[in-house]
Amino acid sequence: MEMEVEKINISAEAHPMTGGDGLYSYTKNSDYQRSVIHASREMICEEISKKLDIKPISSTSYPFRIADLGCSVGPNTFFAVQNIIAAVENKLQIEGLSSSGIPEFHVFFNDHVSNDFNTLFASLPAGRLYFTAGVPGSFYGRLFPAASLDFVHSSYALQWLSMVPKEVTDKNSPAYNKGKIYYASASEEVIQAYSTQFSKDIGTFLSARAKEIVCGGMMVLIMPAIPNGTPVSESTGGILYDLLGSCFMDMAKMGLTDEAKVDSFNLPMYLVSPREIEDLVERNGYFSIERLEQITNLTTPDVQTGTMHLRAAMQGIIGKHFGSEIIDQLFDRFSEKLADQSSYIFNARHERVTQLLVVLKRKLTD
Amino acid sequence: MEMEVEKINISAEAHPMTGGDGLYSYTKNSDYQRSVIHASREMICEEISKKLDIKPISSTSYPFRIADLGCSVGPNTFFAVQNIIAAVENKLQIEGLSSSGIPEFHVFFNDHVSNDFNTLFASLPAGRLYFTAGVPGSFYGRLFPAASLDFVHSSYALQWLSMVPKEVTDKNSPAYNKGKIYYASASEEVIQAYSTQFSKDIGTFLSARAKEIVCGGMMVLIMPAIPNGTPVSESTGGILYDLLGSCFMDMAKMGLTDEAKVDSFNLPMYLVSPREIEDLVERNGYFSIERLEQITNLTTPDVQTGTMHLRAAMQGIIGKHFGSEIIDQLFDRFSEKLADQSSYIFNARHERVTQLLVVLKRKLTD
Repeated sequence: MEMEVEKINISAEAHPMTGGDGLYSYTKNSDYQRSVIHASREMICEEISKKLDIKPISSTSYPFRIADLGCSVGPNTFFAVQNIIAAVENKLQIEGLSSSGIPEFHVFFNDHVSNDFNTLFASLPAGRLYFTAGVPGSFYGRLFPAASLDFVHSSYALQWLSMVPKEVTDKNSPAYNKGKIYYASASEEVIQAYSTQFSKDIGTFLSARAKEIVCGGMMVLIMPAIPNGTPVSESTGGILYDLLGSCFMDMAKMGLTDEAKVDSFNLPMYLVSPREIEDLVERNGYFSIERLEQITNLTTPDVQTGTMHLRAAMQGIIGKHFGSEIIDQLFDRFSEKLADQSSYIFNARHERVTQLLVVLKRKLTD
Repeated sequence: MEMEVEKINISAEAHPMTGGDGLYSYTKNSDYQRSVIHASREMICEEISKKLDIKPISSTSYPFRIADLGCSVGPNTFFAVQNIIAAVENKLQIEGLSSSGIPEFHVFFNDHVSNDFNTLFASLPAGRLYFTAGVPGSFYGRLFPAASLDFVHSSYALQWLSMVPKEVTDKNSPAYNKGKIYYASASEEVIQAYSTQFSKDIGTFLSARAKEIVCGGMMVLIMPAIPNGTPVSESTGGILYDLLGSCFMDMAKMGLTDEAKVDSFNLPMYLVSPREIEDLVERNGYFSIERLEQITNLTTPDVQTGTMHLRAAMQGIIGKHFGSEIIDQLFDRFSEKLADQSSYIFNARHERVTQLLVVLKRKLTD
């Protein structure tokens, strides 16, 4: 117990999405992420129907507990949760178990302490048929009591590392990432530092969840990814972050920001490949992989939507490092560059966009 | 199930304490409430030691779940929760059960959706040894799954009614409360309307908690009250609210606010007597009364502290009805009147201040 609770307050960097419901808010600029949730809907429903253990949940005396980790401020989290509940109810009906009573659902919405929970709570769906709680804290540590969750969902959150790998901001390290804000087209040492950090983070994540999820419980992870064998520098994500990095360097050259500031800034975000995540889950050992799917048939965002989405997700972390006065000009510049290259980025390399859906099941024994 | 979840979203008026941590915030102006929590500490510890069923909690595979209902923004809620956890651990130690493992604690902080949960989450104690969740919603309805709580605490919240009794703002009712903002020195019909509303609200509260608390689980309620046999008009609370009401009427006469606005404003707050609460708990039937205690040995606040405390609790509800521009002048006026009469209010009637501590236990059968 003592050791476990020590981990409750693990320090991890927080990069909350833009709060409130204004022009640049995540609430208004997350329909790309939503389209992925919709695309994954059928698959999640299928997996629940095939794989969920119904014995424990058919008892009405025990609630079915769901957590959405990295929920942000809504509304995507509400769609995701509703999908899961509908799928569970559907399964109970098909199995003829709904007559003996559907369990009560208890839903836990988790994100960093600095997430805008006030907005999240204010936008909870009015007619919801589940009990609600908000859980502040990093998922790179324990958040829930042992064996207290039946189903965990996390969408567009695990690509955020718990921290920027230390070496990439260390001038004396071979992994020092000078003149760049991302690892996409950086040196092999930088790529390795990012990969090592992700590997460590996902291990921490899986081990914490292994304690919290009941044996036989399920977990669905959705995250942006790169296809097997594609270098990150050739992935859409990598190209977009490189483009953003080049805007920073342009502004540094024009004296609009400090070059040293660009050198010390790195996006703590990793794009994993299916093969790599498979390997990491197996190495952790607590979960079996029930499904690993690449979601590709998504509509391509236009330049303005793409810029707004990136801004909603990134302006918090950028403003913190560079000051918020840089934001408008940065994204104007980014939008222009993106318009110049959009046919190249969004079309020619369309097959390089991958969203990964991983369905895991907690093994019955450690 | 269907009937129960319908009650989840029961509409109740929200009167959140002033958020943030500024000059007039509840965070900075709630040490009177805190002194009551401290005064009740020993009693709660004693009751847990004597009355709590330890069999279910001595199992480490099941967390001990605590809810603080009407928690506001802290820090009082953290002291209250810490007291309870220490008392439970203490009991396990005394009974020689701590060697087989102390259970994990899961703490649920509840208040209205409009409560400032962002401030609450940001001020969670850093070294806490419990898991945390925030629960938005009115406690005059279901908030948690059935039989999912071991211990409930509610301090300075149940005096707030779910709504102003309808009759007191109805011009055609004999209970119309013209020229007053409170029932203290009002007609018998107004007093009756308030009493009926409280009786209904506490019944709803107890029935909802009866579903949520495990059989044998405990609940501690702390609230401002009046001694048996004291008319509310002679209680400190009644006198203070009457004084506040007279400030409103003064301002209406000076044209600084509208008299009709004062007529239509009523504080939805009730001061119960020990005998009355005893009767209501028995009528509800789900809980046994383990202890009913009046806490009186508290330091009397000075005029400025008293004004600031009242303001932190009331400026939200007053601003909503009258507009926030009235607040400063109202409380300046109140502070002056209070200074004139403070020796009368705070000293001569010292024995009229009562804080009530009620310890309940969920009966083993319905």
